[in-house]
Amino acid sequence: MQQHGLSAYIVPGTDPHASEYMADHWKEITWLSGFKGETGTVLATLTEAFLWTDSRYYLQADKELAGTGVSLMRESDIDTPTIPEWLTANLQSGDKVGVNPEMFTVSGYKALADQLSESGISLKSIDFIRMLWTENRPPIPQVPLYEYKAEFAGETTQSKLTRVREELQKKKADTMVISALDEIAWLLNIRGLDVDFNPVVISYLLLEQDNCTLFVDKTKVTAEAAEYLRKENITIKEYEDIFPALNALPVSATVLFDGNRLNRALYEALPEQCRKIDVQSPVMVLKSIKNEVELEGERIAMRQDAVALTRFFRWLEEEAFKGGNTPTEYDLMEKLHEYRAMGRNFVTESFGTIAGYKGNGAIVHYEATKDDCAVVHPEGMLLLDSGGQYLDGTTDITRTVWLGGEIPSQAKLDFTYVLKGHIALASIHFPQGTRGNQLDALAKQYMWQAGITFGHGTGHGVGHFLGCHEGPQNVRTDNNPTPLRVGNICSDEPGIYRTGEWGVRIENLVAVKEAEQTEMRTTGDKFLCWETLTLCYYDTSLIEMSLLTEQEKTWLNNYHERVYNEISPMLTKDEAAWLRNKCKAI
Amino acid sequence: MQQHGLSAYIVPGTDPHASEYMADHWKEITWLSGFKGETGTVLATLTEAFLWTDSRYYLQADKELAGTGVSLMRESDIDTPTIPEWLTANLQSGDKVGVNPEMFTVSGYKALADQLSESGISLKSIDFIRMLWTENRPPIPQVPLYEYKAEFAGETTQSKLTRVREELQKKKADTMVISALDEIAWLLNIRGLDVDFNPVVISYLLLEQDNCTLFVDKTKVTAEAAEYLRKENITIKEYEDIFPALNALPVSATVLFDGNRLNRALYEALPEQCRKIDVQSPVMVLKSIKNEVELEGERIAMRQDAVALTRFFRWLEEEAFKGGNTPTEYDLMEKLHEYRAMGRNFVTESFGTIAGYKGNGAIVHYEATKDDCAVVHPEGMLLLDSGGQYLDGTTDITRTVWLGGEIPSQAKLDFTYVLKGHIALASIHFPQGTRGNQLDALAKQYMWQAGITFGHGTGHGVGHFLGCHEGPQNVRTDNNPTPLRVGNICSDEPGIYRTGEWGVRIENLVAVKEAEQTEMRTTGDKFLCWETLTLCYYDTSLIEMSLLTEQEKTWLNNYHERVYNEISPMLTKDEAAWLRNKCKAI
Repeated sequence: MQQHGLSAYIVPGTDPHASEYMADHWKEITWLSGFKGETGTVLATLTEAFLWTDSRYYLQADKELAGTGVSLMRESDIDTPTIPEWLTANLQSGDKVGVNPEMFTVSGYKALADQLSESGISLKSIDFIRMLWTENRPPIPQVPLYEYKAEFAGETTQSKLTRVREELQKKKADTMVISALDEIAWLLNIRGLDVDFNPVVISYLLLEQDNCTLFVDKTKVTAEAAEYLRKENITIKEYEDIFPALNALPVSATVLFDGNRLNRALYEALPEQCRKIDVQSPVMVLKSIKNEVELEGERIAMRQDAVALTRFFRWLEEEAFKGGNTPTEYDLMEKLHEYRAMGRNFVTESFGTIAGYKGNGAIVHYEATKDDCAVVHPEGMLLLDSGGQYLDGTTDITRTVWLGGEIPSQAKLDFTYVLKGHIALASIHFPQGTRGNQLDALAKQYMWQAGITFGHGTGHGVGHFLGCHEGPQNVRTDNNPTPLRVGNICSDEPGIYRTGEWGVRIENLVAVKEAEQTEMRTTGDKFLCWETLTLCYYDTSLIEMSLLTEQEKTWLNNYHERVYNEISPMLTKDEAAWLRNKCKAI
Repeated sequence: MQQHGLSAYIVPGTDPHASEYMADHWKEITWLSGFKGETGTVLATLTEAFLWTDSRYYLQADKELAGTGVSLMRESDIDTPTIPEWLTANLQSGDKVGVNPEMFTVSGYKALADQLSESGISLKSIDFIRMLWTENRPPIPQVPLYEYKAEFAGETTQSKLTRVREELQKKKADTMVISALDEIAWLLNIRGLDVDFNPVVISYLLLEQDNCTLFVDKTKVTAEAAEYLRKENITIKEYEDIFPALNALPVSATVLFDGNRLNRALYEALPEQCRKIDVQSPVMVLKSIKNEVELEGERIAMRQDAVALTRFFRWLEEEAFKGGNTPTEYDLMEKLHEYRAMGRNFVTESFGTIAGYKGNGAIVHYEATKDDCAVVHPEGMLLLDSGGQYLDGTTDITRTVWLGGEIPSQAKLDFTYVLKGHIALASIHFPQGTRGNQLDALAKQYMWQAGITFGHGTGHGVGHFLGCHEGPQNVRTDNNPTPLRVGNICSDEPGIYRTGEWGVRIENLVAVKEAEQTEMRTTGDKFLCWETLTLCYYDTSLIEMSLLTEQEKTWLNNYHERVYNEISPMLTKDEAAWLRNKCKAI
């Protein structure tokens, strides 16, 4: 830092692809500070070092940072300054702060630079970690990539490329640069398993009118994959060669990118004279609109998933506690994995299973580990949030069940408010053009009347055998301008969390489809509605029946009938009988 | 235009204050084209002239433009180009378009300039109308202004000035320029009646740290008003003197303004070197948060209003059609005015009454005139949307009533969907920070299930003895980032419109207040809810009872009980008995 005239250096806990899950290669803050949590940023000055992380990781950070000289900045606390606030308060005008621009999106870098420049502080691009972390740095994963066949993808790569090029032309652009891994995987119909949970391939993409170049470690490209890519006219270059390739773009190029997704280093590599268009990624939008093959794949995956969950819950009820046995939360995760792994075309979980027993269910991002988890008894509440990646599609489901003992009336009220909201969102019809943030309150209206709310999104977008969380659509409070489009998949997952007592969350995945036109309609507006994809019973013992309307009961009974009819043919006779009882009409 | 090298000239149908209602002085498009509608823009080239207006005015424009050489551009039609589209298609690069910058907001001007500059077309500031409309131009109104006493305003001018100056300091500004008339009237506690329906004073305001200058035609300032303004340390200058005053600002000044409200001519008058901060007007925000005196005034005005409406509806039921009499819609408007004008502190209507009989109720901005209105019979649906300006506050209420004959089942369904939505919005509790666009769907959820929606906002902000429509808060679909704040007043007015058949709209005004904390709450979030201000019965004969939940019936019965208890003491015995029957429990 002294050699380079820097007063501070920032290391964000991310990777060059703004990934949700990172390869070990990019766990720079762990190497630097010892902290192993999923979210954090290290800031070093010439004399001090700090780690910013949120309240989920306070305990872990205290433990892991002990003796390192790195101080914890508790970013969920109101009086903790943000990093720009800290820098402007502690640095001088004229000071320089080093960053690796690969670890910032174009927008994130600009926001930071703008905030600092008000105090005369500037950013300087430099990657100290690459220079210093030379021993024992895990390589970038070299898992082979493979073609994701059209029988699953439902659209050829050529068709996708043509549609994206049409979108570029609409914006008067001829070139697009992509660093978001799910966009590259979708566009080229390729998959891999370079990171946990997401079947993506670490790579960059440069799309021009006549060329499409994939920048990827060539050791990952098997002969079969190479043949596929050749057939699709996709050029393969080494991962790092994206930089000279961008440098060499003609100055007449008009380059489109999504500043919220592209890493800043790629932006800096573009010729200065190029016209640059920073807009929402058209690939992200096209990817979010699932075709009929993708939707049918989701339905297939959902049946596999439902069989696994049904078997798991039956085991939990009939076997888990036999003879005084008390499994841990971690044991439940393992057991659920066993059942899921039996499913056809199962590849991996779609995220780390959340098995939250009693008070642990109230910790929204709770993760039980083998060494640190609760023992489960046949009593009280269990929240189970899990999902699978199947070649056919991606699942994500939460059920909250009562394991035994008398149910407190507040537990029933909480479950019922959540269920009513979940049903209200799942059943709503809405005019084309409606955004998710307009529907969010429908899922909260009942708990709001009791003065209850929750802090996470009501629904996130879901990819098709890709990220379990994807944009641009969602059902949240924030002012996301994206309308819900036919073919979008979202989760529907309201919750109520009582610290130290229990957490209730109920989650299905739902897909936007056209609603039938009614005789009563007064305008030409096209109405949309949701198809519920997930197929698993709800624990009706937790319902406060007096709070349900007749419509809600009918919705629930119809759903349970559908679950039984679709899943029971895939079960043994005993399992089917058990499910029949869970699905009986209320 | 030739002398000034212009290829086109635009005359928008607005005034320098972006007013909802204009003084005759500014009816420039009427003078220019003969068109008398409330919304329109004239565009003239060297050889042609066009009037853009929306579908409400097509018939009127056809009639009024006949023989003028001005062609109608039907702007509600999908294939009609916008004005910038027309200009870029028909003008050449290098061409100039003249505009009077007083008639554009800073943002509106910039948007137009940006669109045209892409085609090499530029704007030139010039006011031809002032040069040419010299004969018979009505003067700017000279209605005296008066102090709006603190007993109604609830806060002294000094206190308001101090709070606004604090807001300026937060933004590191020292000067503010205002052309929005409701903001000036609120800030200085002055009122007038220069335009229809809004008790504002045509003026500009320049607020500095040590000075506050009101630019207003001095003939409007009576000795009493002058004494009041002197006492408040407000300097008075002539209306037009705002321009030299802005020109003379020190170049060290940091000037804050709201580009969505300030007229462009004032912006152009600011010294170029001044720092300029374009943000949402802090005056608009403070004004939207009503104090306890203002809210109590609203409650007083609402009782006056309810007495007038109750008397009107009783007359309509018992007198209007006596002996085969058939009043017109216009007669109903007149009669309602008579009753309202009897109210204590009544000043004027708060907008033109909408009395829409049968199919006319489906025309959202319908305005019956003496010469062009329907005859009303004792049968079918009547929609009545009206409001009053009282010294105590501003009202706005819509009721839809059935005048006689058998009620079609669809009419009952429509009324009941609207009523259910109206109740859902009025009863919702929501966490602090919630925006109106998050609540909008609550009012629509029932009609949406039937494939029905409507095209206007569900709720607009309402001023306190000021504009019946005010910002920044509202309950609409668009992505307005403004949170609802305690003290905000909004309308709650869902509707269903069947062309040629009927319109149903039900509207109350509601104010945001703090909700009681519940024992059940899971977080520290403060919850807000609505206080219903409006006090007039609903026509329960139009309710399809089977669609109402027990909670909705309870809400309605409680409301009717409250209406009867608050209003009946102000009625004659016979009137009270009539109201008792209207308010009987369902």
